[in-house]
Amino acid sequence: MTVTAPAGFEAAGIAAGLKSSGAPDLALVVNRGPRQAGAAVFTSNRAKANPILWSQQAVADGTVAAIVLNSGGANCFTGAEGFQTTHATAEAVGTALGVGPGDVLVCSTGLIGQQLPRETLLAGVGTVAAALSPEGGADAARAIMTTDTHPKTVVVEGAGWSVGGMAKGAGMLAPGLATMLVVLTTDADATAPELDAALRAATRVSFDRLDSDGCMSTNDQVTLLASGASGIRPAADELAEAVTAACLDLARQLQADAEGASHDIAIEVVHAASEDDAVEVGRSVARNNLFKAAVFGNDPNWGRVLAAIGTTSAAFDPYAVDVAMNGVRVCSNGGPDRPREEVDLSPRATHVLIDLKAGEASATILTNDLTHDYVHENSAYSS
Amino acid sequence: MTVTAPAGFEAAGIAAGLKSSGAPDLALVVNRGPRQAGAAVFTSNRAKANPILWSQQAVADGTVAAIVLNSGGANCFTGAEGFQTTHATAEAVGTALGVGPGDVLVCSTGLIGQQLPRETLLAGVGTVAAALSPEGGADAARAIMTTDTHPKTVVVEGAGWSVGGMAKGAGMLAPGLATMLVVLTTDADATAPELDAALRAATRVSFDRLDSDGCMSTNDQVTLLASGASGIRPAADELAEAVTAACLDLARQLQADAEGASHDIAIEVVHAASEDDAVEVGRSVARNNLFKAAVFGNDPNWGRVLAAIGTTSAAFDPYAVDVAMNGVRVCSNGGPDRPREEVDLSPRATHVLIDLKAGEASATILTNDLTHDYVHENSAYSS
Repeated sequence: MTVTAPAGFEAAGIAAGLKSSGAPDLALVVNRGPRQAGAAVFTSNRAKANPILWSQQAVADGTVAAIVLNSGGANCFTGAEGFQTTHATAEAVGTALGVGPGDVLVCSTGLIGQQLPRETLLAGVGTVAAALSPEGGADAARAIMTTDTHPKTVVVEGAGWSVGGMAKGAGMLAPGLATMLVVLTTDADATAPELDAALRAATRVSFDRLDSDGCMSTNDQVTLLASGASGIRPAADELAEAVTAACLDLARQLQADAEGASHDIAIEVVHAASEDDAVEVGRSVARNNLFKAAVFGNDPNWGRVLAAIGTTSAAFDPYAVDVAMNGVRVCSNGGPDRPREEVDLSPRATHVLIDLKAGEASATILTNDLTHDYVHENSAYSS
Repeated sequence: MTVTAPAGFEAAGIAAGLKSSGAPDLALVVNRGPRQAGAAVFTSNRAKANPILWSQQAVADGTVAAIVLNSGGANCFTGAEGFQTTHATAEAVGTALGVGPGDVLVCSTGLIGQQLPRETLLAGVGTVAAALSPEGGADAARAIMTTDTHPKTVVVEGAGWSVGGMAKGAGMLAPGLATMLVVLTTDADATAPELDAALRAATRVSFDRLDSDGCMSTNDQVTLLASGASGIRPAADELAEAVTAACLDLARQLQADAEGASHDIAIEVVHAASEDDAVEVGRSVARNNLFKAAVFGNDPNWGRVLAAIGTTSAAFDPYAVDVAMNGVRVCSNGGPDRPREEVDLSPRATHVLIDLKAGEASATILTNDLTHDYVHENSAYSS
């Protein structure tokens, strides 16, 4: 089950003809209420795609009746014509559902710098609205895929209410420049500000730590919608906990489906002076191509870990740091410890533990290795 | 000709047995005077190798009689034992040459996290000192190579004086985490502070713009030595100009020999509000794996260029930026311009022109593409 697991939601996913492959490419999720509250977080990239510019305005009043998502084109760097396409899409959804276009969010993913075929897209809106169903979540999750090898969905149960979700994004997550689209739904009764707080708490420790270099795509959007259909009003921490669990689950699914990756790497930084330091250190390792290529080669090259840490401004003494890889402490106090031959990097799940010995804070950053398949898929993406 | 082109210098390069391949691995450059002035710039990485820690102290008084460089081991993250090896190397050179160890700089390159075989290295010092010759520059340039496919040398002629140089570094320059070692010599008559000023002016616009992500290796060092043997005292700007020309030439040679690269990419940023902005924007593109993989695939994916720019704090309007690739303006005002099919990315030399339309400053950053060979070489480096 997925975004239609919580009561009050319908969804659909169809092939509108945006993808030349004929694969599903248009999804619609509708909140039937009684509440129609929504919140969203958006890419921090200053070059924002047209659907981002639209959705930022549409969500501002906290009322969201529907969200429409297309794959097959990002509608980014497409100028005024592209923005008009986004606007027309929201208008068409509003007309089909009998709601105002300002209550319709829009997401797009695919190649940037190309116009979407507007008439094809608008015709698709009518088709996908006609296909709406309380069982439509799986179809919607499939229609937002680009290079994903399978749909990503989640359900987290609360006490009489639940959170459902779907996500897309693959591969380009490693350098953090993929488009990541996530839709979360809940039948809990919560206001838009409450949703916003829960969503920001959740994304801070999940999707924000999947980025390897702090960069974000032009199109990233994570949206949380509440129908209130359960009639239950959870405490703020209960809601945040469920949304965080859903986000962490989806983040792990995104990591595991990264394009061309052969290792899922969790970089755990402990005993940092602050959480910011822990995140900075983890990211510096996660974005280091030499380290990532070494993991691909099953080479526990801890020197590259320390060299990456050395580029940060975090509090630490290079000659106090310990590094363990998959449970073997290969470096202690900035020098060699156990022989690197003892480390088995053949499993896909890879754990790097960095002990900064500088405080009590910690954080875990998720990334992938740098592989031949990564280069292949990203050198051929638009051709 | 190389570091022994300017009068007053002798050099040698031998196989001391540090490399299991038996290739040359130990170089020595000696300044016979009459002046023995020196200046150096070092890695900004906070995790500094033992030879960096040594050389920083040794160069502080501005007197440098010799520099000894080994490949086959970086002597980094090797603790007190490693520092003692560096110290003993300087002592051995000093004894062989009849100078104080504090006037001997040390550089090391190779795998980090492993001790150098001290006795082998010290025996080599005697051998390389006995091999010193005014024609030894070429041998020295060969002995500092690691994964370089050929030695890099340069000579720039002044008015009755000259600058000679050698460099090593390949491949890992792309992510900026290679060890780059450069030795420049001149027979101009210049004081250590004058050398320092000329060297900093030169590296700022050459090697500093070859880094793709601002990171540096644990072992990077660029050294400039002056013998005064020409008896000519050039003006400060003449000296800086010649040293800059030598550094730019060597930087281009390093870029062209990057491990596994198939494109040499020059990212030229124009009409930036400040030079810092231009450098930040150029670097953001140069470190973007998606862009680098696209260039490998001969794909003029300008959307990835704009997405990278969007992650910076530089002054610009995303919808005012122009991008040209190899002379074809594929993006104007943040939207599509000429068809991407018009761009020919098949030549190795690749030019990306980014017009920010925000001011009058400019900068060019040099990088390489992300290729299968890059992944291969860096996943197998230490195994």
